[in-house]
Amino acid sequence: MILEKEIQFILALDALKKVDRRNFNLEDSRRENTAEHSWQIVVFAQVLLPYAKNTDQIDLLRVIRMLSIHDVVEIEAGDTFIFDESGMTGKYERELQAAKNTFGILDEPLNSDFLNLWMEFEAEETPDAIFACAVDRIMPFLLNVYGSSKSWTEAGVKVAQVENVVGTAVKKASTELGEAFDILLKKAFEEGKLVD
Amino acid sequence: MILEKEIQFILALDALKKVDRRNFNLEDSRRENTAEHSWQIVVFAQVLLPYAKNTDQIDLLRVIRMLSIHDVVEIEAGDTFIFDESGMTGKYERELQAAKNTFGILDEPLNSDFLNLWMEFEAEETPDAIFACAVDRIMPFLLNVYGSSKSWTEAGVKVAQVENVVGTAVKKASTELGEAFDILLKKAFEEGKLVD
Repeated sequence: MILEKEIQFILALDALKKVDRRNFNLEDSRRENTAEHSWQIVVFAQVLLPYAKNTDQIDLLRVIRMLSIHDVVEIEAGDTFIFDESGMTGKYERELQAAKNTFGILDEPLNSDFLNLWMEFEAEETPDAIFACAVDRIMPFLLNVYGSSKSWTEAGVKVAQVENVVGTAVKKASTELGEAFDILLKKAFEEGKLVD
Repeated sequence: MILEKEIQFILALDALKKVDRRNFNLEDSRRENTAEHSWQIVVFAQVLLPYAKNTDQIDLLRVIRMLSIHDVVEIEAGDTFIFDESGMTGKYERELQAAKNTFGILDEPLNSDFLNLWMEFEAEETPDAIFACAVDRIMPFLLNVYGSSKSWTEAGVKVAQVENVVGTAVKKASTELGEAFDILLKKAFEEGKLVD
Protein backbone atom coordinates (compact mmCIF):
# COMPACT_ATOMS: atom_id res chain seq x y z
CA MET A 1 0.00 0.00 0.00
CA ILE A 2 1.11 3.54 -0.69
CA LEU A 3 2.31 5.40 2.41
CA GLU A 4 3.00 2.09 4.16
CA LYS A 5 6.39 3.16 5.54
CA GLU A 6 5.11 6.57 6.63
CA ILE A 7 2.24 4.93 8.52
CA GLN A 8 4.54 2.29 10.03
CA PHE A 9 6.84 5.08 11.24
CA ILE A 10 4.14 7.16 12.93
CA LEU A 11 2.65 4.04 14.56
CA ALA A 12 6.11 3.04 15.86
CA LEU A 13 6.39 6.51 17.40
CA ASP A 14 3.19 5.91 19.35
CA ALA A 15 5.31 4.08 21.93
CA LEU A 16 6.81 7.42 23.02
CA LYS A 17 3.55 8.01 24.91
CA LYS A 18 4.59 5.15 27.19
CA VAL A 19 8.08 6.47 27.99
CA ASP A 20 7.96 8.17 31.37
CA ARG A 21 10.44 10.92 32.12
CA ARG A 22 11.80 11.58 35.59
CA ASN A 23 10.01 14.87 36.14
CA PHE A 24 6.35 15.27 37.01
CA ASN A 25 3.68 17.29 35.28
CA LEU A 26 2.87 20.62 36.89
CA GLU A 27 -0.16 19.35 38.79
CA ASP A 28 2.03 16.58 40.07
CA SER A 29 -0.20 13.49 39.92
CA ARG A 30 2.13 11.54 37.64
CA ARG A 31 5.40 11.67 35.76
CA GLU A 32 5.39 13.37 32.38
CA ASN A 33 5.77 11.17 29.32
CA THR A 34 8.13 12.04 26.52
CA ALA A 35 5.42 12.63 23.90
CA GLU A 36 3.87 15.32 26.10
CA HIS A 37 7.25 16.89 26.78
CA SER A 38 8.05 16.98 23.05
CA TRP A 39 4.82 18.85 22.35
CA GLN A 40 5.33 21.39 25.10
CA ILE A 41 8.81 22.37 23.95
CA VAL A 42 7.59 22.71 20.34
CA VAL A 43 5.16 25.37 21.58
CA PHE A 44 7.62 26.99 23.99
CA ALA A 45 10.20 27.48 21.24
CA GLN A 46 7.69 29.65 19.37
CA VAL A 47 7.19 31.80 22.46
CA LEU A 48 10.87 32.13 23.36
CA LEU A 49 12.23 32.82 19.88
CA PRO A 50 12.24 36.64 20.29
CA TYR A 51 14.59 36.20 23.27
CA ALA A 52 17.17 34.03 21.50
CA LYS A 53 20.66 35.37 20.93
CA ASN A 54 21.21 35.87 17.19
CA THR A 55 17.49 35.48 16.48
CA ASP A 56 18.11 36.31 12.82
CA GLN A 57 20.37 33.25 12.47
CA ILE A 58 17.70 30.92 13.82
CA ASP A 59 15.38 28.93 11.56
CA LEU A 60 12.31 28.24 13.70
CA LEU A 61 11.15 25.39 11.46
CA ARG A 62 14.44 23.54 11.95
CA VAL A 63 14.33 24.18 15.71
CA ILE A 64 10.79 22.82 15.99
CA ARG A 65 11.59 19.80 13.83
CA MET A 66 14.59 19.00 16.07
CA LEU A 67 12.52 19.37 19.23
CA SER A 68 9.69 17.20 17.88
CA ILE A 69 11.94 14.24 17.05
CA HIS A 70 15.02 14.49 19.28
CA ASP A 71 13.54 12.23 21.96
CA VAL A 72 12.07 9.45 19.80
CA VAL A 73 15.29 7.52 20.49
CA GLU A 74 13.91 6.98 24.01
CA ILE A 75 11.48 4.39 22.63
CA GLU A 76 14.44 2.04 22.29
CA ALA A 77 17.03 3.59 24.59
CA GLY A 78 14.78 4.78 27.44
CA ASP A 79 14.86 8.13 29.21
CA THR A 80 18.11 8.97 31.00
CA PHE A 81 17.83 11.31 33.99
CA ILE A 82 19.98 14.27 33.08
CA PHE A 83 21.52 14.48 36.56
CA ASP A 84 22.46 10.78 36.61
CA GLU A 85 26.13 10.87 35.64
CA SER A 86 26.58 7.10 35.44
CA GLY A 87 23.46 6.76 33.26
CA MET A 88 24.91 9.31 30.84
CA THR A 89 27.84 6.97 30.02
CA GLY A 90 27.35 5.42 26.59
CA LYS A 91 24.10 7.36 26.17
CA TYR A 92 25.06 8.89 22.80
CA GLU A 93 26.01 5.57 21.20
CA ARG A 94 22.82 3.86 22.45
CA GLU A 95 20.68 6.70 21.22
CA LEU A 96 22.45 7.02 17.87
CA GLN A 97 21.71 3.38 17.13
CA ALA A 98 18.10 3.89 18.19
CA ALA A 99 17.86 6.94 15.92
CA LYS A 100 19.18 4.95 12.96
CA ASN A 101 16.69 2.16 13.62
CA THR A 102 13.67 4.41 14.05
CA PHE A 103 14.33 6.93 11.27
CA GLY A 104 15.44 4.00 9.09
CA ILE A 105 11.81 2.91 8.81
CA LEU A 106 11.45 5.81 6.38
CA ASP A 107 12.85 6.12 2.86
CA GLU A 108 15.31 8.81 1.86
CA PRO A 109 15.44 11.76 2.03
CA LEU A 110 13.32 11.77 5.21
CA ASN A 111 15.48 9.15 6.94
CA SER A 112 18.63 11.27 6.61
CA ASP A 113 16.76 14.53 7.23
CA PHE A 114 15.64 13.34 10.64
CA LEU A 115 18.93 11.66 11.50
CA ASN A 116 20.89 14.81 10.63
CA LEU A 117 18.54 16.99 12.68
CA TRP A 118 18.92 14.57 15.59
CA MET A 119 22.74 14.63 15.39
CA GLU A 120 22.78 18.42 15.04
CA PHE A 121 20.65 18.78 18.16
CA GLU A 122 22.90 16.45 20.14
CA ALA A 123 26.06 18.33 19.08
CA GLU A 124 24.66 21.64 20.47
CA GLU A 125 26.86 23.72 18.19
CA THR A 126 24.70 25.48 15.58
CA PRO A 127 22.49 28.47 16.54
CA ASP A 128 19.39 26.30 15.91
CA ALA A 129 20.64 23.48 18.13
CA ILE A 130 21.85 25.81 20.90
CA PHE A 131 18.42 27.46 21.07
CA ALA A 132 16.54 24.14 20.83
CA CYS A 133 18.66 22.66 23.59
CA ALA A 134 17.93 25.60 25.91
CA VAL A 135 14.19 25.19 25.38
CA ASP A 136 14.45 21.47 26.07
CA ARG A 137 16.38 22.01 29.32
CA ILE A 138 14.39 24.94 30.72
CA MET A 139 11.00 23.23 30.48
CA PRO A 140 11.46 20.50 33.15
CA PHE A 141 13.30 23.13 35.25
CA LEU A 142 10.17 25.30 35.18
CA LEU A 143 7.90 22.35 36.00
CA ASN A 144 10.08 21.64 39.03
CA VAL A 145 10.28 25.26 40.18
CA TYR A 146 6.53 25.86 39.86
CA GLY A 147 5.48 22.33 40.85
CA SER A 148 6.44 20.22 43.81
CA SER A 149 9.91 19.41 42.41
CA LYS A 150 9.61 15.73 43.35
CA SER A 151 12.12 14.62 40.72
CA TRP A 152 14.72 16.92 42.30
CA THR A 153 14.03 16.13 45.94
CA GLU A 154 13.77 12.36 45.46
CA ALA A 155 17.23 12.35 43.85
CA GLY A 156 18.80 15.03 46.09
CA VAL A 157 19.70 17.22 43.12
CA LYS A 158 22.15 20.03 43.93
CA VAL A 159 22.12 23.68 42.90
CA ALA A 160 25.49 23.26 41.17
CA GLN A 161 24.17 20.38 39.04
CA VAL A 162 21.23 22.45 37.80
CA GLU A 163 23.50 25.42 37.21
CA ASN A 164 25.84 23.22 35.21
CA VAL A 165 23.34 21.21 33.15
CA VAL A 166 20.47 23.66 32.69
CA GLY A 167 21.98 27.08 33.37
CA THR A 168 24.92 26.69 31.01
CA ALA A 169 22.72 25.66 28.07
CA VAL A 170 20.19 28.39 28.77
CA LYS A 171 22.73 31.20 29.08
CA LYS A 172 24.43 30.16 25.86
CA ALA A 173 21.10 30.66 24.06
CA SER A 174 19.46 33.68 25.68
CA THR A 175 20.43 36.50 28.04
CA GLU A 176 16.85 37.06 29.20
CA LEU A 177 16.18 33.37 29.78
CA GLY A 178 19.47 33.21 31.68
CA GLU A 179 18.31 36.06 33.95
CA ALA A 180 15.00 34.34 34.63
CA PHE A 181 16.86 31.09 35.33
CA ASP A 182 19.05 32.76 37.98
CA ILE A 183 16.05 34.25 39.78
CA LEU A 184 14.13 30.97 39.74
CA LEU A 185 17.12 28.87 40.78
CA LYS A 186 17.57 31.09 43.85
CA LYS A 187 13.85 30.81 44.64
CA ALA A 188 13.94 27.00 44.32
CA PHE A 189 16.93 26.78 46.66
CA GLU A 190 15.32 29.07 49.24
CA GLU A 191 12.20 26.89 49.14
CA GLY A 192 14.28 23.80 49.87
CA LYS A 193 13.71 22.21 46.45
CA LEU A 194 17.44 21.88 45.79
CA VAL A 195 20.34 21.17 48.11
CA ASP A 196 23.63 23.02 48.34
CA MET B 1 10.33 39.23 36.32
CA ILE B 2 11.27 39.16 32.65
CA LEU B 3 9.54 36.39 30.66
CA GLU B 4 6.78 36.22 33.28
CA LYS B 5 3.93 36.07 30.73
CA GLU B 6 5.73 33.54 28.54
CA ILE B 7 6.28 31.27 31.54
CA GLN B 8 2.70 31.73 32.76
CA PHE B 9 1.48 30.76 29.27
CA ILE B 10 3.50 27.55 28.98
CA LEU B 11 2.54 26.52 32.52
CA ALA B 12 -1.15 27.12 31.72
CA LEU B 13 -0.73 24.84 28.72
CA ASP B 14 0.46 22.04 30.99
CA ALA B 15 -3.21 21.27 31.67
CA LEU B 16 -3.55 19.90 28.12
CA LYS B 17 -1.78 16.78 29.40
CA LYS B 18 -4.90 16.14 31.50
CA VAL B 19 -7.41 16.44 28.64
CA ASP B 20 -8.34 12.96 27.48
CA ARG B 21 -9.48 12.46 23.91
CA ARG B 22 -12.00 9.82 22.91
CA ASN B 23 -9.57 7.60 21.03
CA PHE B 24 -7.08 5.23 22.62
CA ASN B 25 -3.35 5.00 22.12
CA LEU B 26 -2.20 2.27 19.78
CA GLU B 27 -1.36 -0.20 22.54
CA ASP B 28 -4.81 0.46 23.89
CA SER B 29 -4.30 0.65 27.67
CA ARG B 30 -5.71 4.15 28.01
CA ARG B 31 -7.18 7.04 26.09
CA GLU B 32 -4.78 9.42 24.41
CA ASN B 33 -4.41 12.89 25.88
CA THR B 34 -4.43 15.99 23.73
CA ALA B 35 -0.79 16.94 24.40
CA GLU B 36 0.36 13.58 23.05
CA HIS B 37 -1.91 13.89 20.03
CA SER B 38 -0.60 17.38 19.29
CA TRP B 39 2.98 16.10 19.28
CA GLN B 40 2.22 13.14 17.02
CA ILE B 41 0.56 15.26 14.33
CA VAL B 42 3.46 17.75 14.40
CA VAL B 43 5.76 14.86 13.45
CA PHE B 44 3.33 13.29 10.99
CA ALA B 45 2.96 16.56 9.06
CA GLN B 46 6.71 16.47 8.34
CA VAL B 47 6.39 12.94 6.95
CA LEU B 48 3.26 13.56 4.88
CA LEU B 49 4.28 16.89 3.34
CA PRO B 50 5.63 15.35 0.09
CA TYR B 51 2.15 13.88 -0.53
CA ALA B 52 0.21 17.12 -0.09
CA LYS B 53 -1.59 18.61 -3.06
CA ASN B 54 0.10 21.90 -4.00
CA THR B 55 3.12 21.12 -1.84
CA ASP B 56 4.85 24.25 -3.12
CA GLN B 57 2.06 26.42 -1.68
CA ILE B 58 2.43 24.92 1.77
CA ASP B 59 4.53 26.53 4.50
CA LEU B 60 5.49 23.65 6.80
CA LEU B 61 6.35 25.98 9.67
CA ARG B 62 2.85 27.49 9.63
CA VAL B 63 1.29 24.01 9.40
CA ILE B 64 3.27 22.76 12.39
CA ARG B 65 2.54 25.89 14.42
CA MET B 66 -1.19 25.42 13.74
CA LEU B 67 -1.08 21.76 14.70
CA SER B 68 0.87 22.44 17.88
CA ILE B 69 -1.63 24.99 19.24
CA HIS B 70 -4.99 24.24 17.62
CA ASP B 71 -6.15 22.04 20.50
CA VAL B 72 -5.06 24.17 23.48
CA VAL B 73 -8.64 25.48 23.55
CA GLU B 74 -9.60 22.08 24.96
CA ILE B 75 -8.11 23.08 28.32
CA GLU B 76 -11.15 25.32 28.80
CA ALA B 77 -13.66 23.91 26.34
CA GLY B 78 -12.89 20.17 26.66
CA ASP B 79 -12.50 17.65 23.86
CA THR B 80 -15.53 17.17 21.63
CA PHE B 81 -15.89 13.75 19.96
CA ILE B 82 -15.84 14.49 16.27
CA PHE B 83 -18.71 12.06 15.55
CA ASP B 84 -20.93 13.56 18.27
CA GLU B 85 -23.19 15.87 16.26
CA SER B 86 -24.95 17.40 19.26
CA GLY B 87 -21.62 18.11 20.96
CA MET B 88 -20.46 19.97 17.87
CA THR B 89 -23.23 22.60 18.33
CA GLY B 90 -21.73 25.83 19.64
CA LYS B 91 -18.27 24.26 19.62
CA TYR B 92 -16.67 27.05 17.57
CA GLU B 93 -17.95 29.83 19.85
CA ARG B 94 -16.84 28.01 23.02
CA GLU B 95 -13.44 27.31 21.57
CA LEU B 96 -12.94 30.82 20.17
CA GLN B 97 -13.50 32.27 23.62
CA ALA B 98 -11.07 29.73 25.08
CA ALA B 99 -8.50 30.63 22.41
CA LYS B 100 -8.82 34.34 23.24
CA ASN B 101 -8.41 33.63 26.95
CA THR B 102 -5.41 31.33 26.59
CA PHE B 103 -3.47 33.19 23.91
CA GLY B 104 -4.41 36.44 25.68
CA ILE B 105 -1.96 35.53 28.45
CA LEU B 106 0.74 36.60 25.96
CA ASP B 107 1.56 40.08 24.74
CA GLU B 108 1.32 41.10 21.11
CA PRO B 109 2.36 40.07 18.52
CA LEU B 110 2.33 36.47 19.82
CA ASN B 111 -1.24 36.69 21.10
CA SER B 112 -2.61 37.60 17.65
CA ASP B 113 -0.17 35.29 15.83
CA PHE B 114 -1.53 32.27 17.68
CA LEU B 115 -5.16 33.40 17.52
CA ASN B 116 -4.92 33.97 13.75
CA LEU B 117 -3.29 30.56 13.21
CA TRP B 118 -6.02 28.96 15.31
CA MET B 119 -8.80 30.68 13.30
CA GLU B 120 -7.12 29.82 9.99
CA PHE B 121 -6.95 26.15 11.00
CA GLU B 122 -10.60 26.11 11.99
CA ALA B 123 -11.70 27.71 8.71
CA GLU B 124 -10.00 24.93 6.68
CA GLU B 125 -9.66 27.12 3.60
CA THR B 126 -5.98 27.94 3.00
CA PRO B 127 -3.57 25.29 1.63
CA ASP B 128 -1.79 25.24 5.02
CA ALA B 129 -5.01 24.71 6.96
CA ILE B 130 -6.38 22.10 4.55
CA PHE B 131 -3.21 20.06 4.89
CA ALA B 132 -3.01 20.53 8.68
CA CYS B 133 -6.62 19.48 9.07
CA ALA B 134 -6.04 16.28 7.07
CA VAL B 135 -3.09 15.33 9.29
CA ASP B 136 -5.17 16.01 12.40
CA ARG B 137 -8.05 13.83 11.18
CA ILE B 138 -6.08 10.90 9.77
CA MET B 139 -4.07 10.27 12.96
CA PRO B 140 -6.87 9.00 15.26
CA PHE B 141 -8.28 7.14 12.22
CA LEU B 142 -4.98 5.24 11.93
CA LEU B 143 -4.87 4.54 15.67
CA ASN B 144 -8.36 3.04 15.41
CA VAL B 145 -7.61 1.00 12.28
CA TYR B 146 -4.35 -0.43 13.63
CA GLY B 147 -5.49 -0.61 17.26
CA SER B 148 -8.58 -2.11 18.81
CA SER B 149 -10.85 0.76 17.64
CA LYS B 150 -12.58 0.98 21.01
CA SER B 151 -13.61 4.60 20.52
CA TRP B 152 -15.46 3.60 17.34
CA THR B 153 -17.10 0.43 18.61
CA GLU B 154 -18.19 1.91 21.95
CA ALA B 155 -20.00 4.71 20.09
CA GLY B 156 -21.22 2.59 17.14
CA VAL B 157 -19.53 4.85 14.61
CA LYS B 158 -20.66 4.27 11.00
CA VAL B 159 -18.60 4.00 7.82
CA ALA B 160 -20.46 6.98 6.35
CA GLN B 161 -19.56 9.16 9.33
CA VAL B 162 -15.86 8.38 8.98
CA GLU B 163 -16.07 8.90 5.22
CA ASN B 164 -17.72 12.25 5.79
CA VAL B 165 -15.60 13.64 8.63
CA VAL B 166 -12.18 12.09 7.94
CA GLY B 167 -12.28 11.06 4.27
CA THR B 168 -13.50 14.40 2.96
CA ALA B 169 -10.75 16.35 4.76
CA VAL B 170 -8.06 13.87 3.74
CA LYS B 171 -9.01 13.76 0.06
CA LYS B 172 -9.10 17.54 -0.14
CA ALA B 173 -5.45 17.57 0.99
CA SER B 174 -3.79 14.57 -0.66
CA THR B 175 -4.58 12.07 -3.41
CA GLU B 176 -2.22 9.43 -1.98
CA LEU B 177 -3.51 9.82 1.56
CA GLY B 178 -7.03 9.56 0.18
CA GLU B 179 -6.16 6.27 -1.51
CA ALA B 180 -4.68 4.86 1.69
CA PHE B 181 -7.78 6.04 3.58
CA ASP B 182 -10.11 4.14 1.22
CA ILE B 183 -8.14 0.90 1.59
CA LEU B 184 -7.98 1.19 5.38
CA LEU B 185 -11.65 2.15 5.75
CA LYS B 186 -12.65 -0.98 3.83
CA LYS B 187 -10.33 -3.08 6.01
CA ALA B 188 -11.78 -1.60 9.22
CA PHE B 189 -15.35 -2.31 8.07
CA GLU B 190 -14.49 -5.89 7.10
CA GLU B 191 -12.96 -6.40 10.54
CA GLY B 192 -16.15 -5.20 12.22
CA LYS B 193 -14.63 -2.02 13.58
CA LEU B 194 -17.26 0.17 11.95
CA VAL B 195 -20.95 -0.41 11.26
CA ASP B 196 -22.80 0.15 8.01
